[in-house]
This record gives sequence, C-alpha cells and structure tokens, in this order.
Amino acid sequence: MTHEQLLENIKKKESFLCVGLDVDIDKIPDFLKSYDDPIFEFNKRIIDATKDLAVAYKPNIAFYECHGGKGWESLKKTLDYIPNDIFTIADAKRGDIGNTSNYYAKTFFEYLDFDAVTVAPYMGVDSVTPFFEYPNKWVILLALTSNVGALDFQFTTDINGEKLFEKVLKKSSKWGDESKLMYVVGATRAEKIADVRKLAPKHFFLVPGLGAQGGSLDDVAEYGWNDDCGLLVNSSRGVLYASNGTDFAEKAREAAQGIQSEMKQILADKNFI
Amino acid sequence: MTHEQLLENIKKKESFLCVGLDVDIDKIPDFLKSYDDPIFEFNKRIIDATKDLAVAYKPNIAFYECHGGKGWESLKKTLDYIPNDIFTIADAKRGDIGNTSNYYAKTFFEYLDFDAVTVAPYMGVDSVTPFFEYPNKWVILLALTSNVGALDFQFTTDINGEKLFEKVLKKSSKWGDESKLMYVVGATRAEKIADVRKLAPKHFFLVPGLGAQGGSLDDVAEYGWNDDCGLLVNSSRGVLYASNGTDFAEKAREAAQGIQSEMKQILADKNFI
Repeated sequence: MTHEQLLENIKKKESFLCVGLDVDIDKIPDFLKSYDDPIFEFNKRIIDATKDLAVAYKPNIAFYECHGGKGWESLKKTLDYIPNDIFTIADAKRGDIGNTSNYYAKTFFEYLDFDAVTVAPYMGVDSVTPFFEYPNKWVILLALTSNVGALDFQFTTDINGEKLFEKVLKKSSKWGDESKLMYVVGATRAEKIADVRKLAPKHFFLVPGLGAQGGSLDDVAEYGWNDDCGLLVNSSRGVLYASNGTDFAEKAREAAQGIQSEMKQILADKNFI
Repeated sequence: MTHEQLLENIKKKESFLCVGLDVDIDKIPDFLKSYDDPIFEFNKRIIDATKDLAVAYKPNIAFYECHGGKGWESLKKTLDYIPNDIFTIADAKRGDIGNTSNYYAKTFFEYLDFDAVTVAPYMGVDSVTPFFEYPNKWVILLALTSNVGALDFQFTTDINGEKLFEKVLKKSSKWGDESKLMYVVGATRAEKIADVRKLAPKHFFLVPGLGAQGGSLDDVAEYGWNDDCGLLVNSSRGVLYASNGTDFAEKAREAAQGIQSEMKQILADKNFI
C-alpha cells in the first residue's frame, strides 16, 4: 500500500485505528473452540465487526507461531480474509544479518503479502534494509517501545547527549524515507512522542500501549500529530476481549466504535477531514 | 540441557562446534527436491553425517518460516530427529513486551522443545525474562553481532564511557546467570571478544561469523576461552554447502571434521581434555 492510499483510507474511514490481532486461544469464547480453526474463526468475526472502523490490522506473530504450522495456517487465512484496502502489519520484531533478513522479508512480503513488518534495530543497517527492497511495502522500526524494559537501553545517552532511540531515528531515516518507513513509538510515555516527532517529522508512528499499557488517545494526538496525521494507534485486548461471550464480536465493534469516534473528533479538530 | 551436561558433551566429543542449519532450498542438491520435504531430508543427512562431531545444532528460523506452515513442519521434524544429547538452539532473535515474549517462549520451549533461543535486547528486561521461566532452558542474548550493522548502535558510547553492548552484558547478567544465559558474540571482530569476556567471565558465548563472515577459530579461542571452555562456535554455510552434489553429506562431514580437529587441538592445548 502506498502512503497516499493510507491517507485516503484514514480520511474515508475517519479513523487511524489499528486493531491488534493478538489472539490468545485461552481468551476466546468457548463456543469457537469446536471449530477446526478457532483462531481464524475468531479473527473472521472480529474483522467483519470492525473492518469499516479500522484502517489497519496487526497480528502479533508470537500468538500464531506458538501453535506451529497450524498457527501459520491460521495467520495466512486471516491475512487472506482482510480486505485489500486495509493496511496489514506483521508484528514480528524480526532482524538478523542481511542474508537472513532477506528470508524474513520473503516470509512477510512474499509468502504472506503483508504491507508492513515490525523490525528490531539492534543489528543495524543490513538487518533492516532487505525489507526495503519490496515496492510499496513498509518497515516499522522499533524506536521507543511501550514496555517497562524500554528504560533499560533505549534511553541510554551517548557522549553527544543523544539517546539511543534518537540515534535509531536519525540513522534509520537515512535508510528509508516516509514512503516506506514508520516507527513504533509507545503511548505509555506520551510526552516522549513529541521528542520523537521532532526527529521524524514526516514519518508515520505506529503507537501501541493504549489502554492496558496506560496511554491516552488525546495525549498521543497532541504529541504525535503531523500534517499527514502520521499516526496509527493500536488497540488489541480492549477490542478483542471486550466480551468473552457469544456477543464478543458485537462488543468488539462497540469498543472499536468508541475509539473511532474519538479519532474522528481529533481528525475534525485538526481539519484533516 | 544443564551447564554440566553441555560441558560433558564438549569433553566427550572433543568439540565445541555448533552446526547452523540455515537451509536455503535453492542451495541444496537437486536430487533432494523430489522428496516431499526436501529441507528435512537435507537436514537428516547433515545430522547423520555430523552428529558425532557437533555439540549443538542451530536452525535459523528465517529459513523455515519463509515456507510458512510447511517450513514449521520441516523445523519440527528436524528438531525431533536431532539426538537428545545435542544442544539445540532456535536462532530466532525474538523479543517483545513481556506478555508476548511469553508466547515466543512457549513456541520454542514447549511446542518445539529447543534447549535455547536467541533473543534481541532492544526492548529490555521484560522482553527477555519470560524465557528464563523454563528449567534447563537457555537464553542466548545478542551482545556483539558479526554483521556490518553491528557498528551502527552496538558501539554507541554513553556518558560513562560504556558501549551499548557492554551495557547489555552488565544489565542482563543480573537477569540470569551462566546456568541459563549465553551471549552471541561475533567472530568478525575477534579482539573484541576479549572485551566481552572481561564483562562476562563465566557465560558461554555463541560465536557466529567464522568463514563466510571472516573470523578465525584460533583468534576466537585466544580471546574468548574461559575455564569452562565457554565457547560454542558456529559454522553454517561452510558445512552445509561444502558440495551441492550427491556427496554433499560426505563433504559436510569432511568440513565439520576439519573444524572439529582444530577444536580438539585447542581443547588439548588448554588442558580441557
């Protein structure tokens, strides 16, 4: 998907919501477990219930690969089921030496045909650039994550006063421009989003950490907005597990609608729609 | 596998060789391609030819998951085929927020029953510690990698003069001791291994980057040796693709034997055997 198409979708749906398909087999409603592929059945209903509200879906690969080959089949079926005009993100946090990253790129961009994949920066340039070889496919590089452990290394300050996440932003923005590179910027330290925005004024940010991890949508919009919206805000558990009864899809829709109407207000306030 | 069992195997086999099962379907001999599962057939023959010479096998997961569910089945069959007394490493370089890392740990330690998994440190403590919950299972954390991109962030020096890879070593050595934590330390900058050894005197190092990536075994032993050997040295392409004819397994054995006899000499020189 191109940058322009993504912007069009945000305007059309009045939303910058990404739904994280982090499907835990122990948390889905019992009645789905009699199906041959409960994870796909769950996703299918979540997608049907939210596809007019979400501009992106983001399956976290950990939740699929823990079921081995069967999990990969659930993932492939899910991806095939997502309408083509919705941006798809493999939340995989991969990254290896160049030759090996080529194979990860093949996995997510050829075998699975995702629009984007999340990548970890620790191994540097050759671990990231193989993903840029695919036209209209995207790298979403970890910059500032939303978890407790983000404090361990990402804020390390070098002798020039530059923090590690700032160095990641500066270096990587030379590897790919805003037409194929986004950043993961967590919502749990919302005011930090402003620091990231200064260094990456044009790039989209994928923002996890709303709800369960503590960030607020208004803060994210205040600190992260750019002229092109520049935000995809993820919600996983708050949407997927709004109910664990037979009404789970309906309740997921209500949860997604709640977020989307807040987003619509923000988009209107910013004169984007 | 316990630390003691690993040491026993090194002594028994007079080897600290890890064979990297990075199987590229385009590089394996043509005659294998008529089998239902060419990757497994290739691995089976490589394992048969090298299992008395190697103390560890390390499939890089990228080479399997690029084939989707079928690749995961090849991986599972390969793992089941490796004799139980050989240390198995999932070279996966995973790492995510705590809740998600739990699922990666389930994948590699429950679904696949590997002895160890490689983990990327960027996301810090909660991305790593879920892997420590499993008795006699190991984390192999990226410290200093063997690729070009290692120079981008790993050598960043903080205001106290500490490099990022040094900080990773110091912090992480408080999360797990040498009975369940190893480090990836590349061979391409062999003299740097000595710097790592100072900070992690007791931990095993998994050393990639011999051969294709340029390091020498003598240098690795000179700089990385500790009282418990402390080294697992990986060779992938040099063993797997020693020939691409029908004699590939025989040639792989010869290549592995060449490395093992050098290792035997080192172990003898160090009075370890």
